[in-house]
Amino acid sequence: MENKEKYPLLSSIDSPADLRKLPESELPQLCNELRGFIIDSLANNPGHFASSLGAVELTVALHYVFSTPKDKIVWDVGHQAYGHKILTGRRDRFHTNRKLGGLKPFPSPEESEYDSFIAGHASNSISAALGLETSARLRNSDERVVAVIGDGSMSGGLAFEGLNNLSSTPNNLLIIINDNNMSISNSVGGMNELLVSIHSSKIYNKIRYSIAQFLRKIHLLNEKRANAIIRFNNGLKSIIFRQKNFFESMCARYFGPVDGHDVIGLIHMLRSIKDMTGPHMLHVHTKKGKGWAPAEANATVWHQPGLYDVNTGERIVTEGSTPRFQDVFGETLVEMAKADKRIVGVTPAMPTGCSMHKLAEVFPDRFFDVGIAEGHAVTFSSGMAKGGMLPFCNVYSSFMQRGYDNLIHDAALQKLDIVFCLDRAGLVGEDGPTHHGSFDLAYLRPIPNLTIASPYDECELRRLMYTAAQPGAGTFVIRYPRGKGSLEEWRCPLETVEVGKGRRMKSGKDVAFITIGPLGKVMEKAIAEAEKEGISVAHYDMRFLKPIDEEILDEVGKNFKYIVTLEDGTVKGGLGAAVAEYMAANGYTPKIEIMGIPDMFVEHGTPEELYHICGMDRDSVVKALLKCKQDNNIAII
Amino acid sequence: MENKEKYPLLSSIDSPADLRKLPESELPQLCNELRGFIIDSLANNPGHFASSLGAVELTVALHYVFSTPKDKIVWDVGHQAYGHKILTGRRDRFHTNRKLGGLKPFPSPEESEYDSFIAGHASNSISAALGLETSARLRNSDERVVAVIGDGSMSGGLAFEGLNNLSSTPNNLLIIINDNNMSISNSVGGMNELLVSIHSSKIYNKIRYSIAQFLRKIHLLNEKRANAIIRFNNGLKSIIFRQKNFFESMCARYFGPVDGHDVIGLIHMLRSIKDMTGPHMLHVHTKKGKGWAPAEANATVWHQPGLYDVNTGERIVTEGSTPRFQDVFGETLVEMAKADKRIVGVTPAMPTGCSMHKLAEVFPDRFFDVGIAEGHAVTFSSGMAKGGMLPFCNVYSSFMQRGYDNLIHDAALQKLDIVFCLDRAGLVGEDGPTHHGSFDLAYLRPIPNLTIASPYDECELRRLMYTAAQPGAGTFVIRYPRGKGSLEEWRCPLETVEVGKGRRMKSGKDVAFITIGPLGKVMEKAIAEAEKEGISVAHYDMRFLKPIDEEILDEVGKNFKYIVTLEDGTVKGGLGAAVAEYMAANGYTPKIEIMGIPDMFVEHGTPEELYHICGMDRDSVVKALLKCKQDNNIAII
Repeated sequence: MENKEKYPLLSSIDSPADLRKLPESELPQLCNELRGFIIDSLANNPGHFASSLGAVELTVALHYVFSTPKDKIVWDVGHQAYGHKILTGRRDRFHTNRKLGGLKPFPSPEESEYDSFIAGHASNSISAALGLETSARLRNSDERVVAVIGDGSMSGGLAFEGLNNLSSTPNNLLIIINDNNMSISNSVGGMNELLVSIHSSKIYNKIRYSIAQFLRKIHLLNEKRANAIIRFNNGLKSIIFRQKNFFESMCARYFGPVDGHDVIGLIHMLRSIKDMTGPHMLHVHTKKGKGWAPAEANATVWHQPGLYDVNTGERIVTEGSTPRFQDVFGETLVEMAKADKRIVGVTPAMPTGCSMHKLAEVFPDRFFDVGIAEGHAVTFSSGMAKGGMLPFCNVYSSFMQRGYDNLIHDAALQKLDIVFCLDRAGLVGEDGPTHHGSFDLAYLRPIPNLTIASPYDECELRRLMYTAAQPGAGTFVIRYPRGKGSLEEWRCPLETVEVGKGRRMKSGKDVAFITIGPLGKVMEKAIAEAEKEGISVAHYDMRFLKPIDEEILDEVGKNFKYIVTLEDGTVKGGLGAAVAEYMAANGYTPKIEIMGIPDMFVEHGTPEELYHICGMDRDSVVKALLKCKQDNNIAII
Repeated sequence: MENKEKYPLLSSIDSPADLRKLPESELPQLCNELRGFIIDSLANNPGHFASSLGAVELTVALHYVFSTPKDKIVWDVGHQAYGHKILTGRRDRFHTNRKLGGLKPFPSPEESEYDSFIAGHASNSISAALGLETSARLRNSDERVVAVIGDGSMSGGLAFEGLNNLSSTPNNLLIIINDNNMSISNSVGGMNELLVSIHSSKIYNKIRYSIAQFLRKIHLLNEKRANAIIRFNNGLKSIIFRQKNFFESMCARYFGPVDGHDVIGLIHMLRSIKDMTGPHMLHVHTKKGKGWAPAEANATVWHQPGLYDVNTGERIVTEGSTPRFQDVFGETLVEMAKADKRIVGVTPAMPTGCSMHKLAEVFPDRFFDVGIAEGHAVTFSSGMAKGGMLPFCNVYSSFMQRGYDNLIHDAALQKLDIVFCLDRAGLVGEDGPTHHGSFDLAYLRPIPNLTIASPYDECELRRLMYTAAQPGAGTFVIRYPRGKGSLEEWRCPLETVEVGKGRRMKSGKDVAFITIGPLGKVMEKAIAEAEKEGISVAHYDMRFLKPIDEEILDEVGKNFKYIVTLEDGTVKGGLGAAVAEYMAANGYTPKIEIMGIPDMFVEHGTPEELYHICGMDRDSVVKALLKCKQDNNIAII
């Protein structure tokens, strides 16, 4: 990948210190090289494409002006951070990006001192950066902290909570809004006015902090909340200045918007505001996919395009013979929505990823993309359910962690008829530890009133969706993985299944193999292989984690000394725990091997690699089943 | 309580329909009566006081102008909703408020058709109301939906996510900001200007929705996110109107502020904007505790004052002989902070409740009340930890459900040294199902890298806090209940305990009784009682749920046929599950009775009543232990 002729400037930069030695005049060329390097690299090693191309100039400018790693850059999400990786000593390893043992998919302090904070889930940068900045101040360090947040991430409540706390304590945080699309209210416009603002803000901030500090002492002694100060500041500010926009109402000085592809302009701007006192914000306009025409034209497709031909710009798409669970979800939802007017769809910013765009095409009025706002997605769905509609709310498993309270408090507690479809359940592969859907089975199981199911195959997904849509079905979770299913013909009739009933897929006498979800289907081959080695396996697909099928568990408890459970989720608290709890409470005494995602944050790699590492592949299952081979077994038919 | 002479108007109102028969001129008197009724009632039956007094006029005005229950009022939190309960057919039962089997502590659709949505955790009203409104629109119903949200709840990210989605789809939602304190930016001021706004907003909304609907179709076909429309609307609006404040930037028409204690003025205002098209917002200024001088002077104390003398206005405070866990937490934190400069305190709006105000008094610069914003509290703490400080972040157990993803993604994944203190763990009593800390043990246990502990008594709380503060201790959760501990002398030396080690509190031979947390201490009497009946009980205090003490579990597994586990949390996925998983995986075959909070949303009542109902009181434990009495026991010393 290294090519000194193709990247003469870039190939000499092994750290931001090298970058800072270049004269300003060479930076536009460096940006071109960096952009070219990203395009060349990702053609062969797919990753997040459009966001990083849009952030090239911003990345160069930040490392040029700020003294990283002493100064800290906190990237939000980190889709935009490939340029950052390449400039911070990871150029030569960039071809290993997202590969097992290679560079991590998102910024990670474990990997580099230039990565100030983890950046997988959206909207955390302002809160994290405010924490870093506050800690620097308490340590009397003069380091600067910069949060870089995309406009999409601004829709998350966490970003707002961070903004809302900007003025609660003195800090010099710089927030950069990397805006691809958003029309943020009134811009102040023009470099002159900006500079005036900078000047006046210095005076303003000085007044504000003196008063705030004084008030802080008085108020706290009276047990008043620090919020009082925020409010006071807002009030003070509205007297001194005419408020300019949303951000100003959060007590931060606002600058911009500026052209995010003019690297020299950015550098001058950053230098002007770098040493400001008080929280401040720079609004930068960029274009997703900048410099790569197909991506500029369709940033959604080129967000994560997979392989492409770097010469023609054509994406190299390989289609499997079986459809993805996502396709089945999307098509089935449309089919059901045609027959049932109560059905609406809600997704937090993942219409294409989860295939709910299919509903949007047919019933645009019954489709709601609420932006990156999982909590709202759940509570908004709950409101619609309370009002008589039947929401299908599709959220990626790991992102549902953001809607956990809403699920308990707004949905389950009120026993509302809502169907939560948790996509990307289990190990997701290259996106790594922030994105694995490891915890849902375990964190959902303690919630009362909740039905929790996972389909064995695509037809079961359809049946579960249909079952969940029956009046009075209550709060119903269906979780399934990313990617291909197992059936070529998946358009089975829409029929209900009995809630809380699993299935004995196969009888046997030596060991009971209890699974949930499509991983059970995948392991049919492992069962066959183990039986060839001389062990007789009874296989149960539980289908429902909750309510769990106690008839099956009694059958297993009475007849087996060995149980192996397998789930596409953490080994603590999920299916294995449910089986162990039941056996112990009912006086059954089998030995149980609980197979699942180990109690660790699993790194990135291909799904195949990760399932192998986690001991959840076919070989591991065969081994676990064979371990149970023994003499004194009790037969069942 | 009923008194026709004292409350001549109020006693005739059995529903809002009765209220709407009164002439406007009598409403001020009705407000006085309603206020008096609340003051009289709460003197004998404690509850949330100051908020409801502040909302009296607003409540009367809303039910007078809107056709409840067809029109829907969604109260945020519901501290403010006592007047609403009294006016909606629950006056005669109001003396049962918060009592077992009596009126529920917060609005609940199960209880009354006038309660449109659950209202326990803050900030959910806008999202829920938007859902109700959207469902009404899809059903072609002309009902109106009103969300009433306090300024404190506005700091929650969920409220922002709701606001941010106001313009994503046509709706006529009215949001009332019940503002006790907040200085919300530029108010537009003056009734004339308001009426002009109403007029112009009609035109504006008409244009906006036509364009939005058109765009929606085009955009969705191109798989663009609906957010694009939000952004476009913001842009469009900033062209047509000069934006006035924060709320206007969210695309809602803004009116106010108005005097929230002028019931006639409120009614005229509400009538003017009632039939508006498009989302609109009314900013109302009220005073917490209005009409009760002591509460007006100190709303924090009078938020939930307990018993008081209605004649003198004096609170009737009874102090126990042993301190509360909260006092021990607060004092110990100060003691530790004096010795360790890295220690900072973070709380989402509960400084008094959790006693962190003690830290604020001594080290105001190291204390951070971030408002109602649990997610931010966790991520901000994570940022400070990454920057070298040692945050103690105190969040009520049930509210930590709002910070669940942050705990996983921002804290544990980065193995940061942070101490999360989960207050109000277990059944909290009168605040009911939204506030019980039932789920934390179960939802925390699957998280890798996390240490989870619960103290047996106050000294153990101190030792755990000190242990958690050792460098490299990682992400450390300490959970403990509300209220009194068991020790009169709790100022033991600050010493570490070994992480992951429990204690055998007592040897025995018939049954192993495994507990975690102060409930174990409480049950010492139950053990003594059971032993009197002839069973020999070995008692283990696990102290740590994670890492769990496997030496103890091996000792128990090898020596006991019967185990009883007891935890102050849900029976699914917590301590009982951990014990059952371990026994089954290691070939031990005891029968295990898992005691804890049943798999249901537990209602409200006194803690004693609830522990009895849930089978977690002393008698139930004695019974469970005696059930294990049998012959073939194996002795241990």
